Order: sequence, then structure tokens, then C-alpha cells
Amino acid sequence: MNQPKIVILGAGYGGLTTVSKLQKELGVNDAHITLVNKHDYHYESTWLHENAAGTLHHDRSRVKISDIINSAKVNFVQDTVTAIKPDEKKVELEDSVLEYDYLVVALGFEAATFGIPGLLENAFTIGSINKARLIRQHIEYQFAQYNNEPEPKAERLNFVVGGGGFTGIEFLGELANRVPELCEEYDIDRSKVRIINVEAMDTIMPGFDPELIEYAMNSLEARGIEFKLGAFLKEVREDGITIEQNGEKEDIPAMTTVWAAGVRANHLVEESGLEHNRGKVEVKSDLRAPSHEDVFVVGDCALIWNKEIDRPYPPTAQIAMQEAEVCAHNLTALVKGGELKDFAFINRGTVCSLGENDAMGSIFGGKKLFGWSASFMKKVIDNRALYKIGGLGLVLKKGKFNVFS
Amino acid sequence: MNQPKIVILGAGYGGLTTVSKLQKELGVNDAHITLVNKHDYHYESTWLHENAAGTLHHDRSRVKISDIINSAKVNFVQDTVTAIKPDEKKVELEDSVLEYDYLVVALGFEAATFGIPGLLENAFTIGSINKARLIRQHIEYQFAQYNNEPEPKAERLNFVVGGGGFTGIEFLGELANRVPELCEEYDIDRSKVRIINVEAMDTIMPGFDPELIEYAMNSLEARGIEFKLGAFLKEVREDGITIEQNGEKEDIPAMTTVWAAGVRANHLVEESGLEHNRGKVEVKSDLRAPSHEDVFVVGDCALIWNKEIDRPYPPTAQIAMQEAEVCAHNLTALVKGGELKDFAFINRGTVCSLGENDAMGSIFGGKKLFGWSASFMKKVIDNRALYKIGGLGLVLKKGKFNVFS
Repeated sequence: MNQPKIVILGAGYGGLTTVSKLQKELGVNDAHITLVNKHDYHYESTWLHENAAGTLHHDRSRVKISDIINSAKVNFVQDTVTAIKPDEKKVELEDSVLEYDYLVVALGFEAATFGIPGLLENAFTIGSINKARLIRQHIEYQFAQYNNEPEPKAERLNFVVGGGGFTGIEFLGELANRVPELCEEYDIDRSKVRIINVEAMDTIMPGFDPELIEYAMNSLEARGIEFKLGAFLKEVREDGITIEQNGEKEDIPAMTTVWAAGVRANHLVEESGLEHNRGKVEVKSDLRAPSHEDVFVVGDCALIWNKEIDRPYPPTAQIAMQEAEVCAHNLTALVKGGELKDFAFINRGTVCSLGENDAMGSIFGGKKLFGWSASFMKKVIDNRALYKIGGLGLVLKKGKFNVFS
Repeated sequence: MNQPKIVILGAGYGGLTTVSKLQKELGVNDAHITLVNKHDYHYESTWLHENAAGTLHHDRSRVKISDIINSAKVNFVQDTVTAIKPDEKKVELEDSVLEYDYLVVALGFEAATFGIPGLLENAFTIGSINKARLIRQHIEYQFAQYNNEPEPKAERLNFVVGGGGFTGIEFLGELANRVPELCEEYDIDRSKVRIINVEAMDTIMPGFDPELIEYAMNSLEARGIEFKLGAFLKEVREDGITIEQNGEKEDIPAMTTVWAAGVRANHLVEESGLEHNRGKVEVKSDLRAPSHEDVFVVGDCALIWNKEIDRPYPPTAQIAMQEAEVCAHNLTALVKGGELKDFAFINRGTVCSLGENDAMGSIFGGKKLFGWSASFMKKVIDNRALYKIGGLGLVLKKGKFNVFS
């Protein structure tokens, strides 16, 4: 019974890929592996914007953890982590305490609100299955209410999306497709609905190729999205927002504000006593925390420097899954003996969806893609993520094959 | 241009059946027929409880008026009636005024609130397509919110239905079937949801055969409906109700109260100056208003005495459609010459749905039906109503044929 105890916190892309690989590499007697997750399912967080818009059912975006793990090798605990105590080699959960020899922190992101007044209370964030389906229902409820009030309220049909980055733009693409359906469902003229994007930078998708950005803006504007660029969100209220653009303030009435403009690492990391850089652990090249060599950090809680441009890599599913593979390899080496590997990110490209059949992005070292071909590639990427986590079976079950629709 | 002007107000069962028959009986040059309705569609108001529960899409319950009327013979005006002026032979609409030689008032029902505090503001009523889909979305929104609050609120999952009459019981039957689906959709245990019926009488379905009542209660209780009989609704709040039962008051927290306990005639009748009896026109045997012989009243706005039991006939689709046929015949006789007919109600029986595949009722002079056979008969009745309004084409388009599901 001298098996080392490996505890993995979180069943997102990072945590679940780690477990998935670990259970292949390690035998039943090599280690005692425990996976902790709040829900009994993993969700594809890069698909949540579709669930939130109502264009994809949330059951398509989630996978039962019991379908992925080998229960002979991995013990699953459904619970919520309340504290990480690296000096005591313990993790506190709501209902119990776990001790570990090796810990993998893969607790993902939470919304960063930048102290904007009212944002936390009044804006929705696309951060979980629960939140995504709440947004979906909240939006539809506004349409349902609109025709039932003696004086129809314009703010019910104004939808604000804060942030013109990846999540914001992908969500806008879905919303642009969903809104006409909702208009038909509730006998409301499309022209009465406003979808407004508020972005503090003077461009959407900062860092992307200008040609791709222009393509995205044209595609979205053609479907009725209004862009407020260089506009700072000053306040969010239940029934509207205030922005400041070119030094002038403007109130926009809106019963729905979805905040997609910033994420930070799970707050438990900052509170854990692990050495951190603005809430993230700047991991060593083998993905261990510099202050605690029995703690690995992967995914959105880890900070890895991209030396080429002297900036950190942005948090994505792609990097989380690559980190998870190295993490699992290194854990195996520590348990069974062997060389630890250094992590090196391989950029396979990025494709931003603009709705069901439109997308833009670049792959394989810069080749630009637009429209159908980009949309096709996006589905390939989505299916690849499923394959990494659950193999071909999962791809066939949850994959996206509607390439000709 | 000496054609008499016939104006029909309302495209419910009474109004639309009148128009449907009138356009068959009268030639293009016989009369100038105008139909006025708030929406450009007719809806099957006896199906709205299914739309409200979310078990049937509202588009199945409505028919475009343009698909029913013969536009060569009938002029359709989509507008809301604001006043009836029988002494001036005029009808005021929001956007215009119509003069008539013959008027058919078929403006249907509205909810009777009996002065219960908070009812008007905080309870939903199943009175239109707009209201039905609002209820559907309100219910689902409660489920969506439940898992997103730090402290889940029990009142989100408590659903109160006021009234154990026809509409209340039919709605409960649908809700009992819908709730397990919503529980699955939102990962909520069915045992957390309460569906509570509040009825002031000490029985549901008063006037029905005791055996049928017992069948209905058993069917609904088996699916988790709680009955509060002999319970008076004292107050409705946004987040709960107060009832009084056996002299004791009880507060029930609930974010959703649907009031299905009473209807009255459209308030325009009472305000019109037509002679009325508690808001309804006690029509003569030829269905004309005693005070104005150029005004016919059919459907829920008309009061007709059932001399056998010395009580008025209850307002139903069945009686409205029978009245409409006599009304159309008598209008034709007035325009083209001929004998006016007296109205005589033929009771074809009543079947109360208890959900998709369950029902109870009596037909053809008292034969009792339960379960599948009653459910089958209910669908026959529903399809018959479609046939009367829009012929076989409408039955094939919107009819209910899922008798083996």
C-alpha cells in the first residue's frame, strides 16, 4: 500500500486529458489516482457559447466522467474544492479532505470583472453548463415577455456582449444566427432587436491578421451586429449599461449583458499559498510549481511564457491539452522512474467560429482560412479535442459532422 | 352598393366559425363582411394549456386567418377593438372606426380575478398564445436559475395552479408530464419539484361524475400533483401565495402561480351599453341581444340558460361553435330572406385531458370514458373543432393523430 497518491483537481481539458493519459501509462498498482470535479461531467468549455446562444444543446457539450475514466484505475470524487494546502499536501473539499503525494491543479478559469460596477451582479458569464443554459433561457424569456407587456420594453430586445475577443466574437456569431429564429418563435420583427458588442480596444480580435478581422466584422455586421469599439464599459445595471466612447458617456438600455471580455485563473490558486503571478502559477518547464515540486499546474491556472513575443501564451484548450500530455508523462516518470520532459507549445493554429457555417482563422503556420473551409477546420479541431479526451467513441457520440448543413 | 355591412369581432371559435359558414352561405354581392381580430391568427384556446406547459408547440395551436377566410368575400382587419357603440351602430378600433348593419360580438373571455390581492399582478393566466408561451418560458427559466444561485431557492421549483376546474386540471396533466423532462434538462431531482393545485371547492371538477373525478385525482397524484381542496387563495405575491384551508392560513413559497380558476366575458361587453347579466349578454333564442336586434352575441360573451338544470350553460368551445352556426344561418336569413332559427344546445359530451395519453370524461348522453379511450376521444374532439373551422385541410395540417404514442 505504498502507492503514491495522485490527485487531479478539475475535469476540464487539462485535468481530464491528464487522467485520460495517466490511466493508460500507469498500472492499477502503480499509483492511487483520484479525480475531483464539481459535476459528474466534463464539458467542452470552447462550445459553451453555442449552448448559451441556444444553437447547440448543452448535452452535446458534455460527457459523463464515468464514460471517460477507467474506474479500476481512477477514483472519481464529485465535490467542490474549497482550498489547496500545498504545504500540508492536502486539498480541502466541501465534504472531505484529500491528501496527496502529487497534485495536478487544473481548476480552469473564472470571469475577471476588472472592478466594473454592477458587472458581477448583473452580467452573465459563459462559464459552465449551468451558466450557459441560464443565458439561453434568459434570452428567450426576454422575447417571451416582450409581447405581454402593455408597453413593450425595447431593453428586452437589446443584447449586449462585452468583449470582442475570441469568446465574445464566437458568441456573437451564434447569437446572430439564433435571433432570427427567436423572432419567428415570438412574432417579433428582427429590426426591433439590437445585438451590441462593446470592446475597449479599437479592434475586435486583437492580434489577429487584419484581413481575418475584417472578414469577421463584415460577416457579423451583415447579420446585424453593432460594434462599439474603443468603448469602455463603465457600469452594468439590471436593465442597461453605461459605456464611454471617445470621451462621451452613453447609456444603453438592455436586460441582457453577457460578459466575455476577460478571464482569470480560479481564485483558489491565488489563495493557496503557491507562488503566483497575478493569480496564475508561472510553472517550470516540466510544469511543476516553482515553490512546490509535488504540484503540477496545467491549463488556465498555469502561466507559460512565449519567449518569441515575450508575452504569456493565452489560455486555450489547445495549450491545456498539450500541457496535460506532458504533465501525465512527467507524473508517470516520477512514479515509475524515467526522464521528465520539458513542455513546448506547438501552435496548430486558431480558428474562430462566426456561427454555424462561417469562421475565420489561421492554421499550420499562418495559412489563412475564411468561411466554409474555416468552419470545416473548426469542426475538425472540435472533434480532435473530443478524440484526445475520449477516443473515437466520444467523437462519434458528440462530434460535429454537420459540415454540409 | 346597398350591401349590408356585417362586422364580426373576434376570430375565436365563435367568430371564426361564423365567418367560415357565412362565406359559404353568402355570395360576393350579398353582403360586405368584415372580420376584426387582434392577431392575424386564430388559436385553439382549448389547447393553450399544452402550449403553456411546453408539451405542444404554440404553432400547432394556431391557424393563420388568411388560410381560413375567403378574401374575395371577407375583409380582414387586424386591430384591437376598444369600444362597441351599439346605439351608434359603430365599433371603435385602435386605428379606425367601423360602421355596421349587423354585428357579431365574439370577443371571448378574460380572466376573472375575484378581487384576490396580487392576483392580477403576480399570477399568470392561460389566455392567449402570447401568455401561453410566456408561462412556458417562465417555468423553464425557474429551472435554469435554480442551479445558478449560491443558495438554491425552493420557491423556484414550486408551481401553483389555482383552480381545479377544466383548465386547471388539463394544465396540471400536462405539467405533470413536462416537469420530469425539465428535471432531466436541468439536472434537478424530481423530488425537489412541487406542483400544487389550490381549489376552493372540496372537489376538483365540480359537477363531474364522482368516478371520473376519482380517476383524475389518482392519475394526477400518481404523477406527484398535490391537491389543496377547500382552500381559498387569499393573496398572490411574486414569490408565493397565501391560502386559507379549514380556517388556517398557510404561506406557500412559489415563483410561479398560474390562475385557471375563473373566466368572465370580455370587459368590452359590459362597457358597451348592451343589456347584460354580470358582463354577459343573455341572448334571445335567435342569439340576438334583447336590447339591440342588429347585434348577435356568440361564445363566452353570450349567456344562454339551460332550462333543464336552471343554470347557464358553461362557456365552452363546443357551445360557441354551435352558436356560431345558428348565428351564421340567421344572418344569412336576414340578408337574403328566410326564417330565423332558434338555438338549441346539443351536448356531445365533455372529455378532460390529463396529459398526453390520459383523459376522462363522458360522451353521448353519459357514457363514461377513462384513460386511453378517453384520450383518443379527446383527440377526435380536437380534430372535429379544426374541421369545423378549416375543413379537412386544417385537420391534416394541425390535427392530433398521435393516438398510439
